[in-house]
Amino acid sequence: MCAQLMLSKSVLRLVRSLDSRKGRRQEGLFVAEGPRLVGELLDHFYCHHLFATPDWLAAEASRLIHTPCTEVSPAELSRLSLLQTPQQVLALMRIPEDCPPIASQLTGLHLALDGVQDPGNLGTIIRVADWFGIEHIWCSMNTADVWNPKVVQATMGGLSRVRVHYIDLVPFLASLPDDFPVFGTSLNGQSFWDEPLSPQGVIVMGNEGNGVSREVDALCSRRLLIPNYPANRATTESLNVAMATGIVLAEFRRRQTL
Amino acid sequence: MCAQLMLSKSVLRLVRSLDSRKGRRQEGLFVAEGPRLVGELLDHFYCHHLFATPDWLAAEASRLIHTPCTEVSPAELSRLSLLQTPQQVLALMRIPEDCPPIASQLTGLHLALDGVQDPGNLGTIIRVADWFGIEHIWCSMNTADVWNPKVVQATMGGLSRVRVHYIDLVPFLASLPDDFPVFGTSLNGQSFWDEPLSPQGVIVMGNEGNGVSREVDALCSRRLLIPNYPANRATTESLNVAMATGIVLAEFRRRQTL
Repeated sequence: MCAQLMLSKSVLRLVRSLDSRKGRRQEGLFVAEGPRLVGELLDHFYCHHLFATPDWLAAEASRLIHTPCTEVSPAELSRLSLLQTPQQVLALMRIPEDCPPIASQLTGLHLALDGVQDPGNLGTIIRVADWFGIEHIWCSMNTADVWNPKVVQATMGGLSRVRVHYIDLVPFLASLPDDFPVFGTSLNGQSFWDEPLSPQGVIVMGNEGNGVSREVDALCSRRLLIPNYPANRATTESLNVAMATGIVLAEFRRRQTL
Repeated sequence: MCAQLMLSKSVLRLVRSLDSRKGRRQEGLFVAEGPRLVGELLDHFYCHHLFATPDWLAAEASRLIHTPCTEVSPAELSRLSLLQTPQQVLALMRIPEDCPPIASQLTGLHLALDGVQDPGNLGTIIRVADWFGIEHIWCSMNTADVWNPKVVQATMGGLSRVRVHYIDLVPFLASLPDDFPVFGTSLNGQSFWDEPLSPQGVIVMGNEGNGVSREVDALCSRRLLIPNYPANRATTESLNVAMATGIVLAEFRRRQTL
């Protein structure tokens, strides 16, 4: 544990640059903050460098033998942090290479996101996907970047178990075997409470404003709707996409445990 | 439609003051922004004053006959707005007087929040409660303030139909009739998929970090858990409280429509 990287202007510039997609692509790094999140990600990602307060470093010393660390004061951490309330540790983690499984050989339940824009929503979706044992999320190229610090923080460590792939969804969905259903979600769908839900397939969630795109919708074998209650009562016009994802996943898993 | 209130420093100060609970209590006003939200709330709340761009005012003129309005440029709206991206209209609405129903006479399904702290979570809970036809949310005194602009924006208009009451939860829950069950949510509860869920009662959701408080937990007749999948797999340690609320409400309503 030694101060290999001084808290210089170039370090500050590096961390700031990782707030943008371009910077992350260039450096191959992402930022994670806070003892809980960093503690969990350390077991699953290669840590490039870590900045932490003396207390945290002392408590975690045994885990950090091969991790380049810089001790910082709370004031220095505040300067470095991308959060409003910095928390003891900020880690620069290496973005892993993505090796998605082959579409024709998928098993189990998968999630696909077609243009989810809000980083908080993407992070919340990863967290609930983790809760319900989804191992792969397939994102259209215009979905928010999973390595955005806002996404990383919202996942609550879900990135340790859920793998997120960026792909053109149209050829991906088109290449799935016939016995691997694609469930679209749509305000024009059938109440998912009455629909048969299989333990394998892909559930597609759409953009916050526009839902699932027309090209992707055309590839869905079923269209599911979360009905409001009581039916036909005036209500908010839709559910938040992360909320809808959690409710749909819960119902798929409930059926599997019947 | 006339410029009764100039965009003076005192107006700017007034709007800023409504970002704090104290300011809102003092003025009896809350802030709502954006054409969709303001458009919906105008039908349900008394509007004290409204600041909007010429386009929006022209489009909505017929609805604004009795509403004090000030025309502002987009630049002026930016100065006024509490949002990062101001949207055409900012309204100062009057906080309505709260007239909660009597605990011994409740019917249907209710929600109680025991110390939910995050305004975004509270707003998301109100939005999903609206979707599932919950008309009353009972909040402990230490729950986030429903008139916080972050809450108001996140409700997506749910405040037009969901009424939020602040109350000491312990005497409230203790005064409910015996046939009106109190469902606690807890990581130590029983899988809610296997539990009988009634069409009437109160569902209690707890604080983000600590869950339901001990005093409130003692008043719960049942304790529900949303099981992860597969059972006993390593996962994130909990679900976000708003997400958990949505999943639980969906299951209560599913049972009612069976």
